[in-house]
Amino acid sequence: MGTKWVYDFSEGDASQRYLLGGKGANLAEMTNIGLPVPPGFTITCEACNAYREGGQRFPEGLLDQVAEHRKHLEEGMGRSLGDPRDPLLVSVRSGAPFSMPGMMDTVLNVGLNDASVQGLISQMNDERFAWDSYRRLVQMFGKTVMGIDGDLFEDAIDHMKEQKGVTNDVDLDTEDLKGLVQEFKDIVGRETNKEFPQDPTDQLHEAVEAVFRSWDNKRAQDYRRRNKIPDDLGTAVNVQSMVFGNRGEDSGTGVAFTRDPASGENVPYGDYLANAQGEDVVAGIRNTTPLMEMGSEQPDAFEDLKGHMKTLEKHYRDMCDIEFTVEDHKLWLLQTRVGKRTSLAEWVIAYDMVEEGLIDEEIAVRDRLTAGKLDELFKPGLNPTTEPVAKGLNASPGGAVGRAVFTADDSAEWAERGEKVILVRRETTPDDYHGMVTAQGILTSAGGTNSHAAVVARGEGIPAVCGADAIRIDRKAKGFRVGNDEVKEGDWISINGTDGSVYIERSQVEPSALEAAIGGDEAARRTTLWRAYERFMKVVDEKRRLGVRANADTPDQSSNARSRGAQGIGLCRTEHMFLGEERVAAVRKMIFADTDEEEQQAYDALLPLQRGDFVGILEAMDGLPVTVRLLDPPLHEFLPNHVDLSVAVALAEERGESKVELRGESIGLDDAKTMLQKVEELHEVNPMLGLRGVRLGIVKPGLYAMQVRAIVEAAVELQKKGKDPRPEIMIPLVATAEELRQMREELQPVADQILEDAGVDLHIEFGTMIELPRSCIVAGSIAEHADFFSFGTNDLAQTAFGFSRDDIGKFLGMYEERKLVPTNPFVTIDEPGVGRLMEIAVELGRGSNASIHLGICGEHGGDPDSVVFCDKLGLDYVSCSPFRIPVARLAAAQAVMGEAKTSSK
Amino acid sequence: MGTKWVYDFSEGDASQRYLLGGKGANLAEMTNIGLPVPPGFTITCEACNAYREGGQRFPEGLLDQVAEHRKHLEEGMGRSLGDPRDPLLVSVRSGAPFSMPGMMDTVLNVGLNDASVQGLISQMNDERFAWDSYRRLVQMFGKTVMGIDGDLFEDAIDHMKEQKGVTNDVDLDTEDLKGLVQEFKDIVGRETNKEFPQDPTDQLHEAVEAVFRSWDNKRAQDYRRRNKIPDDLGTAVNVQSMVFGNRGEDSGTGVAFTRDPASGENVPYGDYLANAQGEDVVAGIRNTTPLMEMGSEQPDAFEDLKGHMKTLEKHYRDMCDIEFTVEDHKLWLLQTRVGKRTSLAEWVIAYDMVEEGLIDEEIAVRDRLTAGKLDELFKPGLNPTTEPVAKGLNASPGGAVGRAVFTADDSAEWAERGEKVILVRRETTPDDYHGMVTAQGILTSAGGTNSHAAVVARGEGIPAVCGADAIRIDRKAKGFRVGNDEVKEGDWISINGTDGSVYIERSQVEPSALEAAIGGDEAARRTTLWRAYERFMKVVDEKRRLGVRANADTPDQSSNARSRGAQGIGLCRTEHMFLGEERVAAVRKMIFADTDEEEQQAYDALLPLQRGDFVGILEAMDGLPVTVRLLDPPLHEFLPNHVDLSVAVALAEERGESKVELRGESIGLDDAKTMLQKVEELHEVNPMLGLRGVRLGIVKPGLYAMQVRAIVEAAVELQKKGKDPRPEIMIPLVATAEELRQMREELQPVADQILEDAGVDLHIEFGTMIELPRSCIVAGSIAEHADFFSFGTNDLAQTAFGFSRDDIGKFLGMYEERKLVPTNPFVTIDEPGVGRLMEIAVELGRGSNASIHLGICGEHGGDPDSVVFCDKLGLDYVSCSPFRIPVARLAAAQAVMGEAKTSSK
Repeated sequence: MGTKWVYDFSEGDASQRYLLGGKGANLAEMTNIGLPVPPGFTITCEACNAYREGGQRFPEGLLDQVAEHRKHLEEGMGRSLGDPRDPLLVSVRSGAPFSMPGMMDTVLNVGLNDASVQGLISQMNDERFAWDSYRRLVQMFGKTVMGIDGDLFEDAIDHMKEQKGVTNDVDLDTEDLKGLVQEFKDIVGRETNKEFPQDPTDQLHEAVEAVFRSWDNKRAQDYRRRNKIPDDLGTAVNVQSMVFGNRGEDSGTGVAFTRDPASGENVPYGDYLANAQGEDVVAGIRNTTPLMEMGSEQPDAFEDLKGHMKTLEKHYRDMCDIEFTVEDHKLWLLQTRVGKRTSLAEWVIAYDMVEEGLIDEEIAVRDRLTAGKLDELFKPGLNPTTEPVAKGLNASPGGAVGRAVFTADDSAEWAERGEKVILVRRETTPDDYHGMVTAQGILTSAGGTNSHAAVVARGEGIPAVCGADAIRIDRKAKGFRVGNDEVKEGDWISINGTDGSVYIERSQVEPSALEAAIGGDEAARRTTLWRAYERFMKVVDEKRRLGVRANADTPDQSSNARSRGAQGIGLCRTEHMFLGEERVAAVRKMIFADTDEEEQQAYDALLPLQRGDFVGILEAMDGLPVTVRLLDPPLHEFLPNHVDLSVAVALAEERGESKVELRGESIGLDDAKTMLQKVEELHEVNPMLGLRGVRLGIVKPGLYAMQVRAIVEAAVELQKKGKDPRPEIMIPLVATAEELRQMREELQPVADQILEDAGVDLHIEFGTMIELPRSCIVAGSIAEHADFFSFGTNDLAQTAFGFSRDDIGKFLGMYEERKLVPTNPFVTIDEPGVGRLMEIAVELGRGSNASIHLGICGEHGGDPDSVVFCDKLGLDYVSCSPFRIPVARLAAAQAVMGEAKTSSK
Repeated sequence: MGTKWVYDFSEGDASQRYLLGGKGANLAEMTNIGLPVPPGFTITCEACNAYREGGQRFPEGLLDQVAEHRKHLEEGMGRSLGDPRDPLLVSVRSGAPFSMPGMMDTVLNVGLNDASVQGLISQMNDERFAWDSYRRLVQMFGKTVMGIDGDLFEDAIDHMKEQKGVTNDVDLDTEDLKGLVQEFKDIVGRETNKEFPQDPTDQLHEAVEAVFRSWDNKRAQDYRRRNKIPDDLGTAVNVQSMVFGNRGEDSGTGVAFTRDPASGENVPYGDYLANAQGEDVVAGIRNTTPLMEMGSEQPDAFEDLKGHMKTLEKHYRDMCDIEFTVEDHKLWLLQTRVGKRTSLAEWVIAYDMVEEGLIDEEIAVRDRLTAGKLDELFKPGLNPTTEPVAKGLNASPGGAVGRAVFTADDSAEWAERGEKVILVRRETTPDDYHGMVTAQGILTSAGGTNSHAAVVARGEGIPAVCGADAIRIDRKAKGFRVGNDEVKEGDWISINGTDGSVYIERSQVEPSALEAAIGGDEAARRTTLWRAYERFMKVVDEKRRLGVRANADTPDQSSNARSRGAQGIGLCRTEHMFLGEERVAAVRKMIFADTDEEEQQAYDALLPLQRGDFVGILEAMDGLPVTVRLLDPPLHEFLPNHVDLSVAVALAEERGESKVELRGESIGLDDAKTMLQKVEELHEVNPMLGLRGVRLGIVKPGLYAMQVRAIVEAAVELQKKGKDPRPEIMIPLVATAEELRQMREELQPVADQILEDAGVDLHIEFGTMIELPRSCIVAGSIAEHADFFSFGTNDLAQTAFGFSRDDIGKFLGMYEERKLVPTNPFVTIDEPGVGRLMEIAVELGRGSNASIHLGICGEHGGDPDSVVFCDKLGLDYVSCSPFRIPVARLAAAQAVMGEAKTSSK
């Protein structure tokens, strides 16, 4: 016996989604629980794959099995396809294992032809309906199966309506429709040099093939890539006897959700459309009736529908969406599936269903909540009234509205006088930090989702759209052009960091209820969402094994992270402690120092300031670990831009001026020239691979010692006040064991001496970031000198791939498009490459130092798929931006619970 | 029984160098073959290590064993240490397993004190001699054992000579020396608050400790690092009864080589100094007699010496160096070892010894030739007459003399009119290529041994000194300053790329005999060196398993490589095929193209030119494989420098000029502004990790197709002429299997179509460079689409370490100094990190594609240690710059033969 390619609806069940597709499996399930489903059969996904792999030929046995099931269906219905007296009509619909709404093809009314249209007339006693049905078949078949431009048919309809002086399809009469059928058949002949097939068997087979092929159309491929659905699943084909919602006003069709998919409220939701076929509702051609008002038109069918909804919810224990048709007052269910919903509805529905006893908390947390969408609930939404003028990368979620400014200084100034601003720049640098944090949102025309702007924005929770390359910024004129629009300084703009849209308008912003509730708002705390959040996050924290820490650099960020459930700081960057007016003089002194004494003076000036910074952070994280990364970026980041300074110096010399103007700073020409010389000296071809990280610590030994002193003195100060500070010292960019050994040999005594002098007993761990391929490969020897490892997966991805995250904008889009990378390695950990390096490091590290702590502090710590991978790797914690903490907690729980619903597939 | 820490000379032999040190083992060996060696004993290296590890304490049992051997020695000599009537004196000398000349400490005349000096007087019947010996002991002991500044003693001697009005030490009389002894003892007391020890046992023990400690002094550590000698070997200590060369004119001391260590000629060579102790010869204080004239002073001793030399050469089967003393006409041998020699002498001596039947060819090749020094024999030498004014990195060996020029254009112009020039720049870029190849040598003030300048210079065989940071170049004024010297355009300078020296003078250049011989010079072909080279390289080629290919980009380089024994090209870079006046317009058109058509026009213009390039290269390598790497560098390398262009545009605008002057090119202001915009668009923060390599091929699909077309059409053209072209196509910077799969899917049909159209049957391999950590980790899947892998170990080291080779100059020196890296990873493959990645790639690659070919084309292919590692890894070939081919051949043979003498240790 060969492969079974075809299943009757009565043969399958809901568990067979990979074989029968989601729709087929659910039709079978509904059939089996006794719901009114028009009979039919499903051709399996396997058949589709066999067809695709076999050079677009039906696999052996398929046509025989289709014929057999068709015969069975015809016998059951007492009608047959193409019968000129009383024909059976069938729909041929796609149905993949995962819902891909509207992406693949459907053909209705298969079985009609010049002869059977007469049978339909007598069967239905409705000539106009029969010709309209035939018209629809030729149109859909022509477009979908024969590949004809759909506009040709629509144009013909419009032309006909114009001729008749009517505006709606329903105003066309029988003769008009008859004429259209002929005209459509002419279009088919003209466009394809073939006749519209009259043989119902040809119609059926060709329709099935069209559905098979539609698996590989471009929009289906794009949808799969976006939703991480594998390409090799294939689609099933459902052949189902037609019922007609377009048999007059006693008939109709609709879609229904068992609960509101937007708010999650436990109220049925949907649309009903009298005298129509399903595609009319989906296409939105005519105005529909809200579902809850359908009772007035179809009281019996509506009661039945409500009953079936209850049955379905009980059966599926989830919110379902349903396509239904009413034919002559009789309700038929054509399809059901678990309904898509917003991230808000996800939480509300899960909570209500737990309350109703439909599911338990564990199922709610494991299966019903999408970790990757949770942070949307923390962000303000945007209600724009115009179309976006540009699309960029959704670099940091949330909506923001403000007046356009073009320099960090302007942003800071305008904000100080109470203006809301959006900072617009080609790209940002560490110099811009002070103006970034004062902006409502950030918009850049260059740079990717891991550019400086994006990383800072996510860290600060500021909405950002990056790399909106349609925007042409004129730095000097302080404005930008996009298409024909022009925006000047002070004009209102809005950005939506959740989807990357840019608007030239002052949109409304909707605050986040969760955010308000965390902030203590009483009304927000009474919402179902907040109750759901509190209840489920408790379960999440009980279930997860991974700790969740925050990447936070300031006391504010630390408190923020803590209120979101952070169990410490996994990455406290210290570069901002070298910025700001008060410090820049000392930092430049450090860079320009000719003698050790001068350099030490610079450190002495910075020490008390940085000690204060650490007191604030350690206090905010009292009782929790705080991993401080010693200075990482190259020193030229603390000096003016090379090109800007070169031009400014050249112009000042040309003009015979004695001062150089640079970003509002006025510097004497000689100083500027000295500075330019230093900038040239420090210039690096590839700063990412240059003098930074531990290399700075080695070349400037006083630097790290000063930082360690500031950290430990801060901890001593707090402990003396009865607090419980827990600093951990992290040395970045280590490539060799010897770097860490020598650095620790130098720094540990600094810490020990301070503790001893203060008579304070405090255990301070020393560890390193693992962020270079070599450090993974030699992790065993590095671990001998480390109390902890923290994976810096951003830099690790950069060096493993040889991808500079600042520069990949030029090709990463194409790389994702053409699947040249398995995932965007800066969003989700690249398991075969970067992930394997991490695995090697974990094995070697634990092998040589069994008590070592392992964490991750790259951006990936907040990505659900990556969190699941980190759980599998056996790390102790993940660390992510404060705003991703709840996401990471949920993903960590789901990782343990086994059925992670991390993405939307 | 405890450890045996002490061996009598009669107990050991030459094989025990790790236990007894080189000197101790050889003293034992000489003792055993009956040569006249003053008796003594050796304290082992193990004792030294036990002392160092035990917190600078003698290990248990050592002092007892020393006492026992001392007693045995005293009994044998019939004298005892410190005896006031007839004292025994001993020397206490270091002796490590590998020779570290002058790096560690020695104390002579141990056993003298205020009492025994009287015994020595009566024993020797020479009062002056006895006091001089005592003076030497106090001086050496004070300096070496007690750590007193040696200048204090020297100053006292000078002061004494001044007082006495004499110029030579020998003119000081007994009373003077007696006075000096007292003065020296006073210095000891004053400087250390201790007395000079009178107890000979204290003297002996303290001297032994001093030698132990001297293993860890800074100069010894530096020497070991430079010569790759492990730190954990320790040194032995030899305690030997003194004989005296300073007993008057019938005595003397000397050093002798059994053959000339400079030329290799079979003539004894050395120096003799009457009435002196060994240290006087080494210190070079007095003028010595050439060894061959010693017979006139000491006929009998000289005859004995010549006899012993023969015995030693027969015994050691190698050239030996000897320290000897004549005491009262009697010859004593104090030390022997295999003698150090120049790279020239290495080959000549090995050849002569094979001819003499002392060794066979295999031993000569395996043990007697240093691969790492072979390329010196191919380089011109430099005979400077002044001191160097600066030292840089020895980036490309050889001496060069020319007039200083400061731009590539000037270099090309001056060279065209027949001038010899040295191109002096801060650093070079690909734009400078045309002026680099016309220069005699290249001098840069920035950049490391793997900077652009260094890589091109080595590739072209042009001497280069890089990163000579004492030199301050003034680009505009066309000159440089170094210290107080100033050099202007046109001034003569000389550089020695073998040692990194820079001279302000017109030095003499000595051509290389090997180079002349390869070039066909008849006289050069009659030298022993050439005979040795021909004979031994034949053995080398029979023995080695690894193939050796060249990195060569032009027909000239290819022929050159072939004449040095290259078996093909492992890396033919194609970037220069996009440079040059004729091509730059097309390349810019390609970069600026708005439409596919414009881009294709650019390719059409380049195609015939590049086809011509490939015809030349494939013809030069007729019958041998040529691996062509498709375009690798980022496109902005083909545009003007960002800073230069920005400044030029700003100045032209400021001045209201309509033209921009840029490196001699005159561009309209509007064009320059457009170009600046493109430069800004293409600007990359980290070009090394940006849009380059296969990423270019993907973003600009016509580019690689054009290159493949040029290669294959060239091959077709040659095959039709009866030649045997063997191109292999290499795709650079692959990180994912999918990149290679898609690229090959696109390019293979281009090649196949050309071959089919031409009716030519040619197998063309497609492969990839493995130069990113990720590609090592996923090599299994990449290998499914590759016919070959070629390890690009430069970029692999850059990305594994996160070291940009352009930028590490700022810290790599310190890294080597402090041993933060196991080796300079751009010179020798870093085995634990980069090497392990390669090993993973080899395993996975061969695992999934058993027939894959594996090679290496990074700079490491010419480094002997790395060649040995590649042999161990099982690669099929190494590829290196043409001038390193013989080095790689020799190293590859030595790798197989097992006793690689790759470095000088």
